[in-house]
Amino acid sequence: MSDHLSQHSAFNLAAWNQLIHQDIPATLMLGIRLTQLTPHCAAAWAPLAQNINGHGTGFAGSIYTLGVVTGWTLISALAKTISSNCQVVAGEAHIHYRQPLSGNLVARAELNGAPCASWHSQWQSYRAAKQPLTIMLGTQDSLTAAEMTATFYIKKEELN
Amino acid sequence: MSDHLSQHSAFNLAAWNQLIHQDIPATLMLGIRLTQLTPHCAAAWAPLAQNINGHGTGFAGSIYTLGVVTGWTLISALAKTISSNCQVVAGEAHIHYRQPLSGNLVARAELNGAPCASWHSQWQSYRAAKQPLTIMLGTQDSLTAAEMTATFYIKKEELN
Repeated sequence: MSDHLSQHSAFNLAAWNQLIHQDIPATLMLGIRLTQLTPHCAAAWAPLAQNINGHGTGFAGSIYTLGVVTGWTLISALAKTISSNCQVVAGEAHIHYRQPLSGNLVARAELNGAPCASWHSQWQSYRAAKQPLTIMLGTQDSLTAAEMTATFYIKKEELN
Repeated sequence: MSDHLSQHSAFNLAAWNQLIHQDIPATLMLGIRLTQLTPHCAAAWAPLAQNINGHGTGFAGSIYTLGVVTGWTLISALAKTISSNCQVVAGEAHIHYRQPLSGNLVARAELNGAPCASWHSQWQSYRAAKQPLTIMLGTQDSLTAAEMTATFYIKKEELN
């Protein structure tokens, strides 16, 4: 990961957009843009034109990709507030497509409670902490087209 | 879906590549290419360069996208052999990322048995038939980086 982000700018939206577009070229090609980032929630957007399928609605692969980027960014930002040496990777995910997505794509990942508190104890017991997350996907008007649950691993790299 | 494909060319690889690149622009942007298509299996490929993440390995979103395209194509091709008026959509999917994917991305979807046989009875009882599928993902040398299970809905459009 590029080091645009220090512990003190963990929720700087412009810096995270710069980072994902630089480090993950697919996000730039698909027009993915982070639109909100707080310690409790992240949101992102992508244009339908680049992410359309043969039925004229959101492509299943793009919907998932927008969701995983949104979740990864939220967990990565939270990890930055704890340690500047964390690596966040997706471990597993489930997505349920409920209805066609007709419009530009929007994703919203939300945290309940304060998960970071348990990361410390997980780091003491295991090599990585594990954080599940729910991500809702749809359009600006309604986030009901798809629902994802994704689990991310937060690996703390010990400094020598 | 564009109508490049008749019932008699259901497994024509070039026609399916043309169809996905035209109908789903994300597949063209990510360099996804179908490499094999038979009644039992579909395989696809994508270059690491366009699908890399900040760790220098395959991006989680791209791995999923390659998998869902591979599975969708296999089910869509099988559907063509039964009816020229089927619409195939992803219903839900689970992906487990087992290890980093270091190289160009490869996906392989395989069918066991003859699922299409049950589609007819499902169509008689429901609006859509449902077909689960397993998709293995990795590199040319080893398909062990990730495993997906995806369920597709096959909607038969009745002609008036």
